[in-house]
Amino acid sequence: MTDKTTDTLSEEELNARHADKMRKKKAARDKIMATKTIEKGLVIVNTGKGKGKSTAGFGIIFRSLGHGHRVGVVQFVKGRIDTGERLALQRFHDLVTIKRMGEGFTWETQDRQRDIAAARQAWEAAKEMITSGDYRMVLCDELNIVLRYDYLDIAEVVDFLKNDKPEDVHVVITGRNAKDELIEVADLVTDMTQVKHPFRSGVKPQEGIEF
Amino acid sequence: MTDKTTDTLSEEELNARHADKMRKKKAARDKIMATKTIEKGLVIVNTGKGKGKSTAGFGIIFRSLGHGHRVGVVQFVKGRIDTGERLALQRFHDLVTIKRMGEGFTWETQDRQRDIAAARQAWEAAKEMITSGDYRMVLCDELNIVLRYDYLDIAEVVDFLKNDKPEDVHVVITGRNAKDELIEVADLVTDMTQVKHPFRSGVKPQEGIEF
Repeated sequence: MTDKTTDTLSEEELNARHADKMRKKKAARDKIMATKTIEKGLVIVNTGKGKGKSTAGFGIIFRSLGHGHRVGVVQFVKGRIDTGERLALQRFHDLVTIKRMGEGFTWETQDRQRDIAAARQAWEAAKEMITSGDYRMVLCDELNIVLRYDYLDIAEVVDFLKNDKPEDVHVVITGRNAKDELIEVADLVTDMTQVKHPFRSGVKPQEGIEF
Repeated sequence: MTDKTTDTLSEEELNARHADKMRKKKAARDKIMATKTIEKGLVIVNTGKGKGKSTAGFGIIFRSLGHGHRVGVVQFVKGRIDTGERLALQRFHDLVTIKRMGEGFTWETQDRQRDIAAARQAWEAAKEMITSGDYRMVLCDELNIVLRYDYLDIAEVVDFLKNDKPEDVHVVITGRNAKDELIEVADLVTDMTQVKHPFRSGVKPQEGIEF
């Protein structure tokens, strides 16, 4: 073997080294992937303070729609300006069912009893979609918000996901402050961490970005 | 004021307290949002080891498409299983242009020179889209990957974003290991942090590690 550092290598040697390294990576990756054989409906949670939780939730919905799967969307919090997603979903009206519950962000309504009733109604709609056999994937957008305020009992939601969710249905749950009990029962959890946000430099919410 | 703890409050008192808290929250939020007046094309970066970087990138593309904006997509890495997104985008063929460059994940090709040429070609296509005036938003999917391998010069990319990107065009860049120079020039940066991944099933989030 040579002791040459990268600096003294010719372009040809660099290419050869690269090819060798990549060959090993591919072999390692292929070996790992061969062990992943279980197919099952996942409980996916997008949480954290950063942007992208609902955006990625809708992204995965669009991916599923692309494959021609039927999907359901339940929005637990209304009032979020989400016109773009709703308009985009209209092009898939043959495949998607949307239930929009809730009366707006809680700090817009200031009515706890109404919010609790709306959360209950949305959860009943979500359960019905998930168990119906009609949908491959159901997005519970901002469910974490109502769980955080205890408008819905986390134990009830976890029990349903564990025992009543059909094996082949994916459930995607978004919203900041996901409860530990939900993370425990989930298969895939991502925390969207805010590194930098334009609101901090005076930029306003813009069409196509925030809504 | 009363010293009652939450436990001893009646349902009515709880509701009143909630309404008051939410009223204050809403007032604070309205005040903050009133200071956000700038409208501008953003540089958005989705990075991190977790899932959701490209998914949220495509999610924001769909949101923009929902509004009827024209968007461009350049895929810097082929071979990723992204059939769903491509099929979903077909329903917006009137609004979206897709350029798919690259010859697959680098560990599939093992050919450094070909990868460098493909990265260059993709970047030229992206610049053309961004400056054309035809698109409101351009997604550079997995651009961070080719920057990480130095297939493209980060200084060149940063210089373009700073000086040549039209003021009103949003550019979305995805991929893990975003370079510091890119984060510096970006308006909105989110790190998708992996909390739990189904590949690792059996491992639960641990105190001090995941939370």
